[in-house]
Amino acid sequence: MPQQHRAHATRHAILTAAAEEFDRAGYAATPLSAILRRSGVTKGAFYFHFPSKEALAAALVHAQEAVWPELYQRWVDRGLDPLRTLVGIIDDLVRAVATDTVVRAGLRLSSESRVVDNELPSPYPLWERVLFEMFDQAAGAGLLREGVSPAVAARVLNAALVGARIISCSLNRCTDVVQRTREVWPLVLPGIAAEDWLADWTGEWRHGVSPVQVQ
Amino acid sequence: MPQQHRAHATRHAILTAAAEEFDRAGYAATPLSAILRRSGVTKGAFYFHFPSKEALAAALVHAQEAVWPELYQRWVDRGLDPLRTLVGIIDDLVRAVATDTVVRAGLRLSSESRVVDNELPSPYPLWERVLFEMFDQAAGAGLLREGVSPAVAARVLNAALVGARIISCSLNRCTDVVQRTREVWPLVLPGIAAEDWLADWTGEWRHGVSPVQVQ
Repeated sequence: MPQQHRAHATRHAILTAAAEEFDRAGYAATPLSAILRRSGVTKGAFYFHFPSKEALAAALVHAQEAVWPELYQRWVDRGLDPLRTLVGIIDDLVRAVATDTVVRAGLRLSSESRVVDNELPSPYPLWERVLFEMFDQAAGAGLLREGVSPAVAARVLNAALVGARIISCSLNRCTDVVQRTREVWPLVLPGIAAEDWLADWTGEWRHGVSPVQVQ
Repeated sequence: MPQQHRAHATRHAILTAAAEEFDRAGYAATPLSAILRRSGVTKGAFYFHFPSKEALAAALVHAQEAVWPELYQRWVDRGLDPLRTLVGIIDDLVRAVATDTVVRAGLRLSSESRVVDNELPSPYPLWERVLFEMFDQAAGAGLLREGVSPAVAARVLNAALVGARIISCSLNRCTDVVQRTREVWPLVLPGIAAEDWLADWTGEWRHGVSPVQVQ
């Protein structure tokens, strides 16, 4: 069905062009005209696919969100302990940020959710909850350092990850986001993980046999 | 000189109104008209003080930057060790973020520097350099954990602090930025500081006799 193909290709061209423009300048500073110019789509054709610039931004946020459940499940299915699972998920996630413009733009737009659309939820509580769940499981398995609260660990790690991404994406378009994120673990895990777990993990990590390297 | 007073008051009214508007919605989404409305200043009077919205944003960035050298020097003059000095500076800094709209807006605008004005430098390398200098001094004084690189420690701590501020300011207008930042230390310092230093500091911190509490 060539017509459906064409519609699909147009929608894809709009989303890709929008991702590149929003990723570069953010939501408010990107005029719809810049997206149309980059995509080569006319205004008429555009409105066949999206009612507004706001709806287009929301579509990118949702496209980015759609990536995570499968990635998450893939790591859970490996049956590693909760802390190794957490490190693996985050490592995959930031590699997607480094390589995929739609993911990158979707994350940036979701950080700007108040500007884009008051109906879009902020992404930070969601990520904090996901990290909390994993730290809570880790606490249950005796993998946390004595006295560490899973909720505090989730907030601090979330802050370090959000900061690493924002700094990297601001300075060099996320080119070193994987490296900046990997630097977080050896500095933050000693304050969070139990000593035995940490000793094993540090050995694996230094020798590159950590699950994030061998998958 | 009443006329000078009046000019000063007008400039102050513009800066305060601009800080409130930019803090709320960011640079690109804040029209000059909203700032004029809030300040009660006419467009004609505005242009007597600032040539453009861009120049106004740059003035807020510089007003915010002007706060730090004195704050920094005050802590250096106390003659504490480099790590305690660092914790004290950051604690003061985030209290300014929590309470001072000009500081808050200036920081937000400087994070958006590429959107505001290509001549404005990104704030992240500057903060990274300041943190690096202090960790480098700490390394020289034998206060860092074996194998910890001052450069990596600076990047990771910078990420955690930037993230804590951005999350707090996004979720609740920076209301809990002091608490979120204080949560960072007990989790991140064990991966950075030498054991002896950490044992002393942890005792002080838990008992509220840390310099940030007693100043």
